[in-house]
Amino acid sequence: MEQKKVAVIMGSDSDFPTVKKAVAELKALGIPYEAHVLSAHRTPDGAIAFAKQAKAAGFGVILAAAGMAAHLAGVLAANTTLPVIGIPMKSENLGGMEALLATVQMPSGIPVATVAIDGAKNAAILAAEILALSDEALAARLQQARVEMAEEIAKKDAALQEKLNDI
Amino acid sequence: MEQKKVAVIMGSDSDFPTVKKAVAELKALGIPYEAHVLSAHRTPDGAIAFAKQAKAAGFGVILAAAGMAAHLAGVLAANTTLPVIGIPMKSENLGGMEALLATVQMPSGIPVATVAIDGAKNAAILAAEILALSDEALAARLQQARVEMAEEIAKKDAALQEKLNDI
Amino acid sequence: MEQKKVAVIMGSDSDFPTVKKAVAELKALGIPYEAHVLSAHRTPDGAIAFAKQAKAAGFGVILAAAGMAAHLAGVLAANTTLPVIGIPMKSENLGGMEALLATVQMPSGIPVATVAIDGAKNAAILAAEILALSDEALAARLQQARVEMAEEIAKKDAALQEKLNDI
Amino acid sequence: MEQKKVAVIMGSDSDFPTVKKAVAELKALGIPYEAHVLSAHRTPDGAIAFAKQAKAAGFGVILAAAGMAAHLAGVLAANTTLPVIGIPMKSENLGGMEALLATVQMPSGIPVATVAIDGAKNAAILAAEILALSDEALAARLQQARVEMAEEIAKKDAALQEKLNDI
Amino acid sequence: MEQKKVAVIMGSDSDFPTVKKAVAELKALGIPYEAHVLSAHRTPDGAIAFAKQAKAAGFGVILAAAGMAAHLAGVLAANTTLPVIGIPMKSENLGGMEALLATVQMPSGIPVATVAIDGAKNAAILAAEILALSDEALAARLQQARVEMAEEIAKKDAALQEKLNDI
Amino acid sequence: MEQKKVAVIMGSDSDFPTVKKAVAELKALGIPYEAHVLSAHRTPDGAIAFAKQAKAAGFGVILAAAGMAAHLAGVLAANTTLPVIGIPMKSENLGGMEALLATVQMPSGIPVATVAIDGAKNAAILAAEILALSDEALAARLQQARVEMAEEIAKKDAALQEKLNDI
Amino acid sequence: MEQKKVAVIMGSDSDFPTVKKAVAELKALGIPYEAHVLSAHRTPDGAIAFAKQAKAAGFGVILAAAGMAAHLAGVLAANTTLPVIGIPMKSENLGGMEALLATVQMPSGIPVATVAIDGAKNAAILAAEILALSDEALAARLQQARVEMAEEIAKKDAALQEKLNDI
Amino acid sequence: MEQKKVAVIMGSDSDFPTVKKAVAELKALGIPYEAHVLSAHRTPDGAIAFAKQAKAAGFGVILAAAGMAAHLAGVLAANTTLPVIGIPMKSENLGGMEALLATVQMPSGIPVATVAIDGAKNAAILAAEILALSDEALAARLQQARVEMAEEIAKKDAALQEKLNDI
Repeated sequence: MEQKKVAVIMGSDSDFPTVKKAVAELKALGIPYEAHVLSAHRTPDGAIAFAKQAKAAGFGVILAAAGMAAHLAGVLAANTTLPVIGIPMKSENLGGMEALLATVQMPSGIPVATVAIDGAKNAAILAAEILALSDEALAARLQQARVEMAEEIAKKDAALQEKLNDI
Repeated sequence: MEQKKVAVIMGSDSDFPTVKKAVAELKALGIPYEAHVLSAHRTPDGAIAFAKQAKAAGFGVILAAAGMAAHLAGVLAANTTLPVIGIPMKSENLGGMEALLATVQMPSGIPVATVAIDGAKNAAILAAEILALSDEALAARLQQARVEMAEEIAKKDAALQEKLNDI
Repeated sequence: MEQKKVAVIMGSDSDFPTVKKAVAELKALGIPYEAHVLSAHRTPDGAIAFAKQAKAAGFGVILAAAGMAAHLAGVLAANTTLPVIGIPMKSENLGGMEALLATVQMPSGIPVATVAIDGAKNAAILAAEILALSDEALAARLQQARVEMAEEIAKKDAALQEKLNDI
Repeated sequence: MEQKKVAVIMGSDSDFPTVKKAVAELKALGIPYEAHVLSAHRTPDGAIAFAKQAKAAGFGVILAAAGMAAHLAGVLAANTTLPVIGIPMKSENLGGMEALLATVQMPSGIPVATVAIDGAKNAAILAAEILALSDEALAARLQQARVEMAEEIAKKDAALQEKLNDI
Repeated sequence: MEQKKVAVIMGSDSDFPTVKKAVAELKALGIPYEAHVLSAHRTPDGAIAFAKQAKAAGFGVILAAAGMAAHLAGVLAANTTLPVIGIPMKSENLGGMEALLATVQMPSGIPVATVAIDGAKNAAILAAEILALSDEALAARLQQARVEMAEEIAKKDAALQEKLNDI
Repeated sequence: MEQKKVAVIMGSDSDFPTVKKAVAELKALGIPYEAHVLSAHRTPDGAIAFAKQAKAAGFGVILAAAGMAAHLAGVLAANTTLPVIGIPMKSENLGGMEALLATVQMPSGIPVATVAIDGAKNAAILAAEILALSDEALAARLQQARVEMAEEIAKKDAALQEKLNDI
Repeated sequence: MEQKKVAVIMGSDSDFPTVKKAVAELKALGIPYEAHVLSAHRTPDGAIAFAKQAKAAGFGVILAAAGMAAHLAGVLAANTTLPVIGIPMKSENLGGMEALLATVQMPSGIPVATVAIDGAKNAAILAAEILALSDEALAARLQQARVEMAEEIAKKDAALQEKLNDI
Repeated sequence: MEQKKVAVIMGSDSDFPTVKKAVAELKALGIPYEAHVLSAHRTPDGAIAFAKQAKAAGFGVILAAAGMAAHLAGVLAANTTLPVIGIPMKSENLGGMEALLATVQMPSGIPVATVAIDGAKNAAILAAEILALSDEALAARLQQARVEMAEEIAKKDAALQEKLNDI
C-alpha cells in the first residue's frame, strides 16, 4: 500500500509564513505532501473540486489553514470523508478567536480536527499520527521525536541552572 | 421590471422558529420570497447550486440563517454577487458569539451583510430597504412602518405613566 | 434612472486611513460617492440631518464607519430607510469587539448591515452589490472582479510551488 | 433653589421590570422624577428633543436604560451637558456584554456614567449622590442608608451563625 | 490486519449523557470500542497508564471528553503517539469556553484534534474517518452517511414548504 | 458656596501618562483639583482615610484610575457618599477588560460611575457636568466646548474633501 | 503549636448555598473555622478590621467568596499577610467571568490565591493543603482523600460498563 | 524544623524572563528554592515524578508557570498534596486568557492556587505567606515589605505633586 499524501491548503498566500512550519514538519517526517492556495470564498469551485478528488488522488489527510471567518476547513470537510485538520490563523483584531470558533464549532455530521491558533506544526504532527496508524516506520519516527523533545527539555533544564546564578 | 424575490435559506429546520419572523415580515411587506433548508456542510452542492442560479431565478437578496461555525452566508456569498444577509443563530453554549464572528468576519472581497444574533426580523427589513431602492411603494411602506413604530412607543410611554403609580 | 450615490460617513477623520479603502473601491467600480466626517456624539444634529435628507439627495446606500461605542451607523439608520452598512473600527484596547457589537446588535425594527472589523473594502463591495440590482453594468463589473480574484489566487498558488522548494 | 428632577428613560417598556428598581429607589430617597419610554432608534426625534430641553425643564440627571447595541445613553448625552447615567440591560444572548460596551466605551468628549449590567438601583443612588452635592438633607439620607446597609449585613452575619450548625 | 479499536475516555461519569452520542455513533458505524471513566486529575496514574498501553492494546484513536480546565485529552496525548480527539464539555458558568481553550491550545509537539463543545458525535465520526483510511468498507459507510444526511435535509426542506403556509 | 474640588486618585504613578489628560481637562475648565497616588491594595489605609474625609475637605467628585483587578474606585466609593468616577486602565494582557469589569460591576448599594477604558478626559468632563449643576458658568463652558467640538469636526470634514482627491 | 483556624468570609449571605461546600469540607477534614458575612463595599470597616486582627486571632488562612466586581479577597489580602484564597462567585449575567478577573488579576505585591468560579470545596482543600504543611495528621487525611477519590472513579468506571450495554 | 523549599517549575525555558521575578523575590525573602524546566506535555514522566517526590524532598510549595493550554499546575497538583500555585503565562494570541482558564478552572478535588497572568512575583509572595505560617521571621519580613510598599507609594505621591505643575 502506497503511503498517502498530505494536502496543505491555505486560504491566502499571506498565511504561508505560518503554514510553512507544517510543510517543514511533514518534510522532516518524510511524508509526501502537496501545498496549495485555495480560498473557500474567492475560489470556492477550486476548493470544492480539490476536496472531492482528494481521496482518489491519493491524499490521506487534508490540512486547512484560514483566518477570520475561517470557512476553509469546513468547506473541504463537507466535500470529503478524509480527516480534515483545521488551523485557525491569528488575526490582527481578535487574536484569532474568530478563526478558532469558525473552525472548531462545526455542526453535527461534519467534523474538523482543530488545532491551536497558528498551530501549523502540530497540524502536521497530527497528520503524521493519523498516517502512522498504518505505517510503523512513521510511528517509530514520531516516538523518536517524543524522546528528542524530552531530551531537549532536559538540556534546557540544565542550562537553566546556570542562569539561576545570575539572579 | 418585475419585483425581485427574497430567498430565505436556513441551515437547519430547527432554525425555523426564529427564521419565520423574517418570513412573516416579508409577507407583511408584500415581498415575494422562497424559503429553503440548505446546509453549507450537509448539502454543500445544493447550497452552492442555489446561490449560482439565484440571480437568474429572479432573486434580489438572499437571507442566510445558521448557527455555530456559521458558514452558510459566506458560502452563498462566495457563489453569487447578489447581496447576502447573514443571520447568526443563538447557540446553546456560546450564546451565538461564534455564529456572529463566523458570519461577519468575512475576508476581503466577499461581504456578508450581518444583522444581530437571531435578528431574523431585521434581516427581512434590511432586504426590504435594499429592494425599496427601485420600488417606491415598498419604500413608502417602510417609511410608514417607522411611523407606526414611533406611535407604538408613544403608547407604551403613556401606559408606563399608569404603572409608575404602582411603585 | 440616474445612478444612486453612496455616502461614506466616518465618525472621526482618524478613521480615514482605513475608510479610504472603501472610497478607493467605489472609485474603481465607477460608483459616485460623497464622503464626510460626521459624529453621532460630537455632531449629532449634522449626522441626523444628513440621514434625513440622504434619500432625497440621491443617495442609495450609506456606509458608516465608527469605533468604540460605535453608534454612528445606528443613528443614521434610525433616520432613514436607506440601507446602512456599518463598518466597526478596530480599537486600541478591545480590538474592535465593542464597535462590532455596538454596530451589529441593533434592536428589532432598525437594521444595520454590518461587515467585518475594519472591513471598509467589503462595505463598498456590498454597497455595489446592492446598487447592482438595478444596474446590470455594475453587476457585470462585480462578476468580473470575482473572476479576477480567482485568477489572482491561482497565480499565488503557482508562486507558492516555487517557495515550497526552499523549505 | 428648587430640587432638580431625575429623568428615567428606557429604550423599551420591556425594560421596566428592571428599571423600576431605579424608580423605587428615587421614591424612597424623596427625589422627584419622570419616567419615559423613548428609543434612540425607534423614536430618535423624541429622544433628542427630550435631551435638548431636559436642563431647562428642571432635570439634573438623566438615567438611560437600554439593551443590545445600547445607544440610548450616548444619544442623550450627545444632546445635553447634564450628567447621563447609563444602565446596560442584560440580553438573552450575550448576557448584556454588548450593552455594557456600547454604553461605556464612549469616545472622547461625551461621557456616559455607566453602572453595572441591570444596575438600575445603583443608577438611582448615583443620581442621588450627584444631587446631594447641593442638598445636605439628601446627603444625610444617603449616609443613613449606608449605616442601614451595614446593619443589615451584621444581622445576616448573626443569622449565618445559626445556619452553620446545620452543616 | 485487525480493525483498531476506539477508546472513549471521559473525565467524569457525569459527562456520559453527552459522551454516549459518541458511543452510539461508533456502534452505528460498526467500530469496536471501549469506554472508561478516567480523570487527568483524580486518577492521573490510571489515565497515563491507559495512554501508554493503548497502541499495544489495539487502539487506533482515543476520544477524550472533559470539562472546565480540561486537561484529559492533553495528558493522554502526552503519553501516546496515537491521534487523540478532544471533546470540550459545556460548563455551567463559562459555556465550555474554558474547556475548549484548555483542549485546543496545545503547545508545539503534542497535538489534540479538537471538536466542538459537546461535539461527541462528531468526535466519533472523525475517529471513523481516521480508521477508514485503511478500511474501505468503513469509508463506504461514511460516504453513505453523507448521502443520507443530504436526503434528510431535502425531506426537511419539503416539510418546510408546508409550514410556510401557516405563517 | 465655594466651588467643590475634584480629587484625582490613581493606583500607581505609572497611570499618570493617561490620567494627566483628566488633570489637563480640569485645568482647562477651571476646576480646582488635587491629584494623588493611592493604592487600594498597597496603601489601603491611606486610600480609605482619603475617601472618609473627602467631603469634609471640600471635594465634590472623586476620580479613581486603576488597572487589572481595579478595586480603587470601589474602595473609595465604599467609604464616601460623594460620586466616584472610575477610570479602568488598559492592561498589557487583557486590554483593560478586567479593569472595566472590576470597576463597573459593583454590587447593589455602592455605585461607581464608570467611563471607557483609559477614558481619563471623559472622566474629567463628567465631573464637570456634575459640578455644573450648581455652577452656571461652568455649565456655559461645557456648552461652549460642545460647540467647539462640532466646529472642529466641520473643519475636519472640509479637510477630508481635499484628501479625497488623492485617492 | 495549636492548629490555626480558617476564616470563611462571604460578601453576601446569598453566597452561602455555594460557600457552605467549603464549610462542609473543612468540617470533614477536622479543621476549625469561623464563617462570616462581611462586604468589601457595604461593611468596609468590618472587613478590614477582621483582616487586620486575623493573624493574632489564630487564623491561618482566609477564604473570601464574592461575586461581580469581587473586591473582597483583595481587600482582605491588602490588610493581612496571611494567605487569602479567593472564590469568584457565578453571576447571572457574565457567568462569573467578572468575579474571576476581579479576584485573580491582583497587582504586584498583594496576591490572592484564586480557585475556580464557585470553587468553594477546592478553596477548603487548598486551605487544608496549606495548613497540612505543619500538621502531618491533616496531610495524611488529604492523602487518604486522594485515594478515595481514585477509588470512587474506579467504581464509576465499573458502573459505566453496565450502562454501555444499553446504548 | 528545617525550612521548606519552594519549587519553581516552568513549562518552557522561554517562560524564564517572566518567571525569574518569582526566583528573585524568593531570594530577596531568603527562601530556599529549586527551579526546573519540566513540561506537562513534553516531559510528562519527569513532571509527575517531581510532584510525587516533592514533599519527601523537603518542598513546601510548588510554583508552576505555563502558557496556552496550561496543564502544568494541574498535573503537578494531581500528583501531590502540597499547595501548588499556578502562574498563567501571557500568550501571543489570546493574551493569556486561555492559560488563566486552563489553570484556575480546576475540577473539584484538586485545587490550584492561581495568580494573575504573568504574576510571577505575586506567586513567590503567596508562597512566602504560606511558609510564613510556621516561620515568624519570614512573616516579619513580609510585614516589613508591606510597610516599604506603602512608603514607596507615598514617595511617588510626593513626586507626582511636582509633575502636576507641568500640566
